[in-house]
Amino acid sequence: MEWFEETLHENWRQGIRIKEILYRDQTELQDLMIFESYAWGRVLTLDGVVQTTTGDEFCYHEMIVHVPMLAHGAPRQVLIIGGGDGGCLREALKHEGVERVTQVEIDRSVIDLCRKWLPTISDGAFDHPKARVIIADGARFAAESPERFDVIVVDSTDPIGPGAVLFTEEFYRNVRRLLNPGGILATQCGNPSIKPQELVDTQAAQRAAGFALVDYYLPVVPTYIGGGMALGFATDDPAKRKVGADAIRERGVPKGLRYYTPEVHVAAFAHPAWMIERVGH
Amino acid sequence: MEWFEETLHENWRQGIRIKEILYRDQTELQDLMIFESYAWGRVLTLDGVVQTTTGDEFCYHEMIVHVPMLAHGAPRQVLIIGGGDGGCLREALKHEGVERVTQVEIDRSVIDLCRKWLPTISDGAFDHPKARVIIADGARFAAESPERFDVIVVDSTDPIGPGAVLFTEEFYRNVRRLLNPGGILATQCGNPSIKPQELVDTQAAQRAAGFALVDYYLPVVPTYIGGGMALGFATDDPAKRKVGADAIRERGVPKGLRYYTPEVHVAAFAHPAWMIERVGH
Repeated sequence: MEWFEETLHENWRQGIRIKEILYRDQTELQDLMIFESYAWGRVLTLDGVVQTTTGDEFCYHEMIVHVPMLAHGAPRQVLIIGGGDGGCLREALKHEGVERVTQVEIDRSVIDLCRKWLPTISDGAFDHPKARVIIADGARFAAESPERFDVIVVDSTDPIGPGAVLFTEEFYRNVRRLLNPGGILATQCGNPSIKPQELVDTQAAQRAAGFALVDYYLPVVPTYIGGGMALGFATDDPAKRKVGADAIRERGVPKGLRYYTPEVHVAAFAHPAWMIERVGH
Repeated sequence: MEWFEETLHENWRQGIRIKEILYRDQTELQDLMIFESYAWGRVLTLDGVVQTTTGDEFCYHEMIVHVPMLAHGAPRQVLIIGGGDGGCLREALKHEGVERVTQVEIDRSVIDLCRKWLPTISDGAFDHPKARVIIADGARFAAESPERFDVIVVDSTDPIGPGAVLFTEEFYRNVRRLLNPGGILATQCGNPSIKPQELVDTQAAQRAAGFALVDYYLPVVPTYIGGGMALGFATDDPAKRKVGADAIRERGVPKGLRYYTPEVHVAAFAHPAWMIERVGH
């Protein structure tokens, strides 16, 4: 019986029992593994850390995409930075009013690997006529692009290694520039129970970048152990944050979602008391 | 480096690094261990399953106690069944209007062990003048007691082994009889991501016991891995379920809580879409 033992936290870990290793790329630079598990479907790990599982990725992808899109109300142009597995693209394309979803992923091999081994995550999204995939550095794209977007989703790894640039004030300032009036930014902010400082820092960086409202919300993804994970929510239109469940329903929630509901949208912004004290409202 | 590896789920587990084993009672009947960890303070495990940790027990205890108590509004008589670590007793006693909190625990040694090795959990509650501890079988107490209560909290283990009787229709019927008009029952219902059938079954049993409203809510306790855990909420006064955050605040939330807020109370009743489909609203 072989187990994958996560190495994200020094003194606490999850183990996922491996049924079969499907792919492994173990070099000096990285250790990427895709395996079939008994409990969570197929699992993608990078350097000992779970990146996604086909068993619970819907919790994460639905929440990082539908919360900003339904808070916005009528997004036509959506930008995804990172997200090579295609889960964000899949969810964004479920909104009929969307004209185009642009995905900027730095590494084409991530997309290729995920299409081959985790096809249920993108589920055909890369071939959708409204999808545009650009292989480029997301930070550079944010600094240079003349385009504008209604919703921007930053589906990054944690702020260590090459992904760290996607958590800086400069990056958020550039991303803010890419937003149309009333636009919304959603970002992956790690696990506040284990690493609250990451959330404190990204909230500060987003405020420093000039957003009028910076907040965070807390979906629960079982294999991101540590309780609720944090997603950042930043906009220059604070009213977008206060939309109620009934108003969201009227805007038209895509059919067939498995995690997101208008009530879950609103509820995810309720912060446990210790987070309010440590991170802020 | 020694790890405690949880055996609750066959194909998925958490490992908690052990700093020092403080107490172990390993017999044919049970394997009870209390250890100091690096990540979560002191940890109590029973037969390979985490029962509580001093690092995150507040998430669980605050939510299983304050949600029914503040939903009720003016509880004077509170009953706790199980809960030998004293965490529920501690939280219930924070409400100034409470006249007495009765705890019925089947095993005195659990209380003694927890007072000795996990004293921060009861935090003096067993010596509080409003606390009454009865060493007795909770199911039998529910069947025979002539007393009445405003809030009843069932702080049990999972529905396997000796605790299974606390998940039956007969038990819930007896507990319902012990409630004053407008009374509320809150119960531990396990992890719906891993074992949704447990929640389906307890919801059905509580409905069969005659409660006018049966619902569940979802606090997040990091070391109960698997995302949000489920707590049952049953009452014959459906209006108690619909109290809003502002009304809760006016009722007077105890000071110094670390997880519970009126917003968190309301938010915990938002169910992910797949749970609505599988378990019901």
